[in-house]
Amino acid sequence: MRATVLHAPRDIRLEDVADPQLHLGTDAIVRVVAACICGSDLWPYRGQPAPAAPRRIGHEFVGLVESVGADVSTVTPGDFVIAPFTFQDNTCLLCRRGVHTSCVNGGFWGVDDKQGHQTDGGQGELVRVPWADGTLVATPSQPSQEMVAQLLTLSDVFPTGHHAAVSAGVTAGSTVAVVGDGAVGLSAILAAKRLGASRIVAMSRHEDRQRLARQFGADEVVAERGKEGGAAVREILDGIGADFVLECVGTGDSMQQAMYSSRPGGRIGYVGVPHDVTLNVPAMFGRNIGVAGGMAPVRSYLEELLPDVLDGTVTPGDVFDLTVPLDQVADGYRAMDERTAIKTMLTL
Amino acid sequence: MRATVLHAPRDIRLEDVADPQLHLGTDAIVRVVAACICGSDLWPYRGQPAPAAPRRIGHEFVGLVESVGADVSTVTPGDFVIAPFTFQDNTCLLCRRGVHTSCVNGGFWGVDDKQGHQTDGGQGELVRVPWADGTLVATPSQPSQEMVAQLLTLSDVFPTGHHAAVSAGVTAGSTVAVVGDGAVGLSAILAAKRLGASRIVAMSRHEDRQRLARQFGADEVVAERGKEGGAAVREILDGIGADFVLECVGTGDSMQQAMYSSRPGGRIGYVGVPHDVTLNVPAMFGRNIGVAGGMAPVRSYLEELLPDVLDGTVTPGDVFDLTVPLDQVADGYRAMDERTAIKTMLTL
Repeated sequence: MRATVLHAPRDIRLEDVADPQLHLGTDAIVRVVAACICGSDLWPYRGQPAPAAPRRIGHEFVGLVESVGADVSTVTPGDFVIAPFTFQDNTCLLCRRGVHTSCVNGGFWGVDDKQGHQTDGGQGELVRVPWADGTLVATPSQPSQEMVAQLLTLSDVFPTGHHAAVSAGVTAGSTVAVVGDGAVGLSAILAAKRLGASRIVAMSRHEDRQRLARQFGADEVVAERGKEGGAAVREILDGIGADFVLECVGTGDSMQQAMYSSRPGGRIGYVGVPHDVTLNVPAMFGRNIGVAGGMAPVRSYLEELLPDVLDGTVTPGDVFDLTVPLDQVADGYRAMDERTAIKTMLTL
Repeated sequence: MRATVLHAPRDIRLEDVADPQLHLGTDAIVRVVAACICGSDLWPYRGQPAPAAPRRIGHEFVGLVESVGADVSTVTPGDFVIAPFTFQDNTCLLCRRGVHTSCVNGGFWGVDDKQGHQTDGGQGELVRVPWADGTLVATPSQPSQEMVAQLLTLSDVFPTGHHAAVSAGVTAGSTVAVVGDGAVGLSAILAAKRLGASRIVAMSRHEDRQRLARQFGADEVVAERGKEGGAAVREILDGIGADFVLECVGTGDSMQQAMYSSRPGGRIGYVGVPHDVTLNVPAMFGRNIGVAGGMAPVRSYLEELLPDVLDGTVTPGDVFDLTVPLDQVADGYRAMDERTAIKTMLTL
């Protein structure tokens, strides 16, 4: 089969690799129908860090079940399935507490599972899925071509935006500010709107992203950053700042911007993969700021989010503004790296 | 009147000062019946930082209303009242959101109010209370001598422990670990028990405090600290750690101990006044750790907590293990400084 391999910074190729095999009774093989490129894929793509050796990549995909091991009971060949960006057993102590990303048997696409068998990256034709019952969620019927893009966002980006909103604790009638206008930030706007936020402020400087932010539910857009951005958010939101701030970038600057935008007693939901971010607790103490979030336990949210995607209540797939066939995967990375695309879908 | 004045590190004296006067229609004067010494009073007492000039001190007191300004309507002379450790109007945008410690008209005992009039410290005979309607909560009748000690904890220490539990989000049936065996940590145990936690682990090395921890609801006591302490908590709590950790010290070490003790997806409630505490967000991200808390908005909790104190459901006043008359205030400080007392009550 063909699969995407990252060789070195900005050297990414579609290559022939060995077809995956069923190793364990709990495995399934999925034929990928669509995959996408994540903002977090750009870190190794940009050499932060550079791969020590050529490595498989991609962790967002949907597809058709090709075959299943003897112990798999919830999906059967032919099912259209969504794969979260981690695999998990969905039965362990931590999965039962909703922290599927910390599953004692879980892991990440493209690296070995805990039994020592390689898994595949999501940006390829086939993927061996460990713990298929715990990982894959099948749709009730075969989706249309348009619906595939919507469903693909359930593998990561939409539940990640949702995780920011849930971790912060967004409630109906609340005010929300969103830091970051990438695909995750835009998804966080949609998630906050879906949870009933009454006023949403998007922080964005790019006209195309501002437009999508408003489509997803933003009432106001603030272009200023840092202290000025925080002051603008406070001016819009009753002079005090947002009840909930969703931090969807992961830099020290973006976290600081979230702090500036929060009202006293506010909560920051953080889902931007953090790089060199520290929090100064004495500065949070007097203002009673809380911070919660992390790596989204996508699997825990699928039962809740899937029906709203299937019936069109939300259209998170509108975040894709570039679709290329898998053999142009390098062009897809380049477009996201140069920010000419918000999010790239790869079709097979 | 006589009031406590901190002159220099470990030089604290009861002195004659001017009686307070009603300055504004919203003021009241309260004759203090009992006050106490807070762990946070020990910081300036120990010279961290040393007072630039002699300063009034104390922020936890209960007493009898002596006189009220023309605009005060909720308390009348003779009422027994609880004073939170801040004053506040209880009507502003931030008070209405439960963040009374950030009240736009609020402030701290012993320093000037926003109108420029001095307020008194709580460790004295009389206190001018700004925003009396928003600040003071009267009991339905005059309390007994024993009940005074219980009610006194509502000025700070018990609601501060409660704030740790509420900020973390303690729910019925959850597991809780408490870092810190001072009066706040012990109060946090009581608060977590009151909120229905099913298993509470106290972290303590002192036999007298361990005993009170168990009396307040701790099921287990862990004496180890740091990584070893975290490992011991995990071993007790299903091998994964606590759903909620209450950080009641405020040092980098205690926060790190809280991190070690939390399960993935756990929440840390922080109320220890923080000194040089930073959080490493990348270390929190993969484990989905959240941190919330700060300076307890005591006033927001009094309606909920007062009935349970009055009817004896909880006895937070058991935290007092030393009672001295106000003129021995220096002995009270010394006992807490040397940790021969957990918490000192001053009677008048």
